[in-house]
Amino acid sequence: MRPISTIGFDADDTLWESEIYFADIEKKFSQLMRTYGVEGDIGDYLYTVEKENLARFGYGVKSFTISMVESAHHLTGGTLRSSDTMQIVQWGKELMNHPVKLLPGVNETLQSLKNAFSVLVITKGDPFHQHQKFADSGLEIHVTEVEVLQEKNSAAYEKILSKRKVNPEEFLMVGNSLRSDIFPVIEIGGHAIHIPHEITWQYENENAEAGPRSNYAVLESITALPNFLNDYISAEVT
Amino acid sequence: MRPISTIGFDADDTLWESEIYFADIEKKFSQLMRTYGVEGDIGDYLYTVEKENLARFGYGVKSFTISMVESAHHLTGGTLRSSDTMQIVQWGKELMNHPVKLLPGVNETLQSLKNAFSVLVITKGDPFHQHQKFADSGLEIHVTEVEVLQEKNSAAYEKILSKRKVNPEEFLMVGNSLRSDIFPVIEIGGHAIHIPHEITWQYENENAEAGPRSNYAVLESITALPNFLNDYISAEVT
Repeated sequence: MRPISTIGFDADDTLWESEIYFADIEKKFSQLMRTYGVEGDIGDYLYTVEKENLARFGYGVKSFTISMVESAHHLTGGTLRSSDTMQIVQWGKELMNHPVKLLPGVNETLQSLKNAFSVLVITKGDPFHQHQKFADSGLEIHVTEVEVLQEKNSAAYEKILSKRKVNPEEFLMVGNSLRSDIFPVIEIGGHAIHIPHEITWQYENENAEAGPRSNYAVLESITALPNFLNDYISAEVT
Repeated sequence: MRPISTIGFDADDTLWESEIYFADIEKKFSQLMRTYGVEGDIGDYLYTVEKENLARFGYGVKSFTISMVESAHHLTGGTLRSSDTMQIVQWGKELMNHPVKLLPGVNETLQSLKNAFSVLVITKGDPFHQHQKFADSGLEIHVTEVEVLQEKNSAAYEKILSKRKVNPEEFLMVGNSLRSDIFPVIEIGGHAIHIPHEITWQYENENAEAGPRSNYAVLESITALPNFLNDYISAEVT
């Protein structure tokens, strides 16, 4: 058994808050739609449009903004007012611009790991926005490299590892998404630690029951990671 | 003088058509605005909004689509109809989906260079869209690697080259944009060939008069590249 040499961290909702900002805008969007007399599950409708647009526009704020405009047109039966369209665009700009808020203990945890491991940030979505957030995060000093993927599947992880000549069994991924951070890494023979976030985009945990039920650990907070790793690594080598 | 080992190609409007599709949608956008009685230079207004949004949203179709919605709201004095908003979103989807149309001779030229040089595609903008277009282009077999940058400035070129341990004087960049493909490469001591495209986004040649007036070559078509390179390289080594 080779020791773990490289730790990958997801970014959104693992290192810093992200989904809370989307959830806030979604709430405002629903309230706006209610003023048009729209009934039913507005969030659910928006989610359907978002998913349809993923293949065409990819992940991220710009894609989400366009999906809100599209949903609003349909939900209001074609009566969306120009000023409300502009309000949605404005929400998109707010989402791009909110300051980066690190989750508790992130800075200290990465600091304590960086001498013993190669620390990667492996995220997906809009690279423009992700690189901007990473620069704002101040985490650069603890991180070897940032990878912004279009899709976090097993092939993408394999590519990252082979580029670095890291064997999957030397690699540990830490993140809040079963779909993107845990299952694909387990699939290629890597290690994974799931740190659930209170609010996670429903897409990230969809079909979770189809994934492996074991072979990964669950921690409540990133601050528990260094101690957990000590125990985990001792257990692996004995 | 070291010989040229690596050739970088810009993608949009160097390997394949791109700006013609934007120009077409811009024309439709202007026509739509005219139906609201909007006067003056609509393209110019849109361009101003686009440039303002670059720092916030980056390059690419999604950013352009949001800028069209925003411009339309303001140009129509807040009377943009819901169905026209949706039309703009639809144009954004069309822009994401048009088939990749290679410029004449691109395939043969890359084919003829790939044994003698490392061939890179160095583009900027929306990585989601650029990787999609590259996959559709069929050029993968001729290309060592694709780099999608957020900004094509001298620091970004330096990073690409140092990652590959390529000295700038061993590097030649080919592209249609003075701002993105020629000036920053000349600045770091590399070689550059400008192949103007009939339609180039005005942003790419803005402030061109501020750039170096020499130290790069201009070719009419990519098909002239292999012969030109033979002469160029013989001249350099003698």
